[in-house]
Amino acid sequence: MGPGRIAPVRDTAFKRPGGAQERKREVARLRILVLGGDGYLGWPTALHLSRRGHDVGVVDNFVRRQYDHEMGVDSLVPITQLHHRVRVWEEVSGNRLDTFIGDLTDPVFVDNTLERFEPEAIVHFAEQRSAPYSMIDRQHAVYTQVNNVVGTLNLVYAIAERDPSIHLVKLGTMGEYGTPNIDIEEGFIEITHKGRTEVLPYPKQPGSFYHLSKVHDSHNLQFACRIWGLRCTDLNQGIVYGQETGETDLHPDLATRFDYDGVFGTVLNRFCAQAVVGHPLSVYGKGGQTRGMLDIRDTLACVELALMNPADKGEFRVFNQFTESFTVQQMAEMVVENYPGAARIDHVDDPRVEKEEHYYRAAHTKLLDLGLVPHLLEPATIRSLLAVVDRHRDRVDPAAIRPTVQWRNTANTLRPSSDISAS
Amino acid sequence: MGPGRIAPVRDTAFKRPGGAQERKREVARLRILVLGGDGYLGWPTALHLSRRGHDVGVVDNFVRRQYDHEMGVDSLVPITQLHHRVRVWEEVSGNRLDTFIGDLTDPVFVDNTLERFEPEAIVHFAEQRSAPYSMIDRQHAVYTQVNNVVGTLNLVYAIAERDPSIHLVKLGTMGEYGTPNIDIEEGFIEITHKGRTEVLPYPKQPGSFYHLSKVHDSHNLQFACRIWGLRCTDLNQGIVYGQETGETDLHPDLATRFDYDGVFGTVLNRFCAQAVVGHPLSVYGKGGQTRGMLDIRDTLACVELALMNPADKGEFRVFNQFTESFTVQQMAEMVVENYPGAARIDHVDDPRVEKEEHYYRAAHTKLLDLGLVPHLLEPATIRSLLAVVDRHRDRVDPAAIRPTVQWRNTANTLRPSSDISAS
Repeated sequence: MGPGRIAPVRDTAFKRPGGAQERKREVARLRILVLGGDGYLGWPTALHLSRRGHDVGVVDNFVRRQYDHEMGVDSLVPITQLHHRVRVWEEVSGNRLDTFIGDLTDPVFVDNTLERFEPEAIVHFAEQRSAPYSMIDRQHAVYTQVNNVVGTLNLVYAIAERDPSIHLVKLGTMGEYGTPNIDIEEGFIEITHKGRTEVLPYPKQPGSFYHLSKVHDSHNLQFACRIWGLRCTDLNQGIVYGQETGETDLHPDLATRFDYDGVFGTVLNRFCAQAVVGHPLSVYGKGGQTRGMLDIRDTLACVELALMNPADKGEFRVFNQFTESFTVQQMAEMVVENYPGAARIDHVDDPRVEKEEHYYRAAHTKLLDLGLVPHLLEPATIRSLLAVVDRHRDRVDPAAIRPTVQWRNTANTLRPSSDISAS
Repeated sequence: MGPGRIAPVRDTAFKRPGGAQERKREVARLRILVLGGDGYLGWPTALHLSRRGHDVGVVDNFVRRQYDHEMGVDSLVPITQLHHRVRVWEEVSGNRLDTFIGDLTDPVFVDNTLERFEPEAIVHFAEQRSAPYSMIDRQHAVYTQVNNVVGTLNLVYAIAERDPSIHLVKLGTMGEYGTPNIDIEEGFIEITHKGRTEVLPYPKQPGSFYHLSKVHDSHNLQFACRIWGLRCTDLNQGIVYGQETGETDLHPDLATRFDYDGVFGTVLNRFCAQAVVGHPLSVYGKGGQTRGMLDIRDTLACVELALMNPADKGEFRVFNQFTESFTVQQMAEMVVENYPGAARIDHVDDPRVEKEEHYYRAAHTKLLDLGLVPHLLEPATIRSLLAVVDRHRDRVDPAAIRPTVQWRNTANTLRPSSDISAS
């Protein structure tokens, strides 16, 4: 802290209870900021951590809701305003969530938020997370990389300046690795080359400007841990499916969003939407693309496991956060099999530039070693997903599902007028 | 090109001469844009390519000159304004240099420049290139990454949209690799792992937010080549020394800059400045840091070799652009040995976070295979560098040489007032 600055006083409203049990509480109960806490995964993560007894602050700038306006789409499941659902959560659980509204690319906001909340850990979901969105055109590519990289840079500077002991749990993606023809390891790989051996960062071959932004983050974070002794866990997450968690189920107004559109909808959620509205399930290309997947409930469990077992001072740690791998074709077939009505698969030209068939074997033992008990993808899971869609089937806009962003184009129109007239 | 857009008409002022010899000329003579053409290496590269018969356009926003104002330092060798030295070059050589003044982070400027000049190749020096500058504080780290990454993103979008056959020759850095305990290869490494083998991008361990920006660029460029079929040569350049080239020597007003300060001064140039003004040569830490080095004249030769042997369509090619490796201690000793007066070495605390002793063996055969004949670091080279400094010794500000940027600090004062009063 520079001269002339006053040491921050812990706001009593946020003060951790003192007294005899403080030490015990410090082990079990953490002050956790959830960045992007209004989003698909951030919101249920905040609720889960709150229910588990942690003091949780939610940070968001609502830009995810703005993307919906930009694209003319909406979450399949209606979601309430953040301030409303925070009040509902307090009524339901008796637990308060502090809210901080602002943008991570604003360094003053980031620093003030850390000063006010004094977190012991930060879960960072607050990045633009759609590959197709980043590939719309130059403007969206630049936005995605600047937003994600600058937000995370501002965060590590604020952590280093305020309290380097804060554990940063950062959402990365399995897509950072791409699809190499050798086994994928968790962040690092031991390489023997010309008679010498070294453990080095696993080579990255990301497949979109979004995935690239996460690779940039990983490199920046590893460096920040090295020079400033920060502690960071980079969660290279697979593709998440599901919409219901133990906490969001407690009240309809606590629901998290469900995206089925071609830009933000993830593959399994999107297939379920297509089955319910009677459209063919659109598999991109041959469908042999293999991806690590996980249940939304396992996202919450993994984040909590990372928080309760923090990285060491100066450690940049990488966990591959997924539980099973499937090809896109397999996922489509599972939905067809479990949909009670008629459903069929349609192979469409792959809008992406990716291998449509490839070797894929990726390590994911570190979270299991910490105690993760996965929810595997079973027929009941798919049926419950289909039921979610069915409850809101009137809200599905079939025209929004089609892939409109072609990787090979430098500029894409989000919803061509021909689509609008056809819908 | 989208509907309703008019195909760009080649401006006659820039038109390549037609006629019977056009095909022959197309092999030997290229239309080349030099981005950052007002800088230390960009300017002599532009002159060299112009003298070799190419049609050269210079792009710059003069931000390098602004950094001098920010830091209160100046090039040891006086440099004239760009527009003046362009006129001098035309008088001396009879060759015209087109100039385009603007910023690569402005996409309209980038696109307009490509439309007007219609380059066949682009040499991209236009990035913030100082590691210490990027480590001053949060603002400078964010500036460096946004400036470098967004400028290059705008460039690849403009190339992909206007003419994907343009060969992009991009300046990277050997610092992208860091100092792994195995041999460094040229961009890619064959890895055998659990019984399978694949050639993957060489793992990167950069040592500053500047070096990180180059790693981000490399990943972005490799992806752009893959999805849009661009052709790119990434020159992972070592540390350059020297100030005089065959072209800048033709007239005093054609000189390129010579930086000796603690922020932009490169190691060998800085040692020469210290020797001449009678200050100890400041070696950071033990001085066992080994770096690839090259003569400024070899930079020009390497860039030209890359241009005359372009990457294939869709190819992202990496050359390690240096000719010899030395430890920092060795370089200091060479300067001491070749300085006619008394000079001594002083070991100061390393302001960086880096290995002060380490294994270092890096491949650099690709440019030699294309015909590079290196200027190796000989006593005569050091003596000519010392002579350059001696001619301008009255312009040396000893206080500017000290390292003022500490990697372990999140905020550094460029020139503390104690320094100013001491100088």
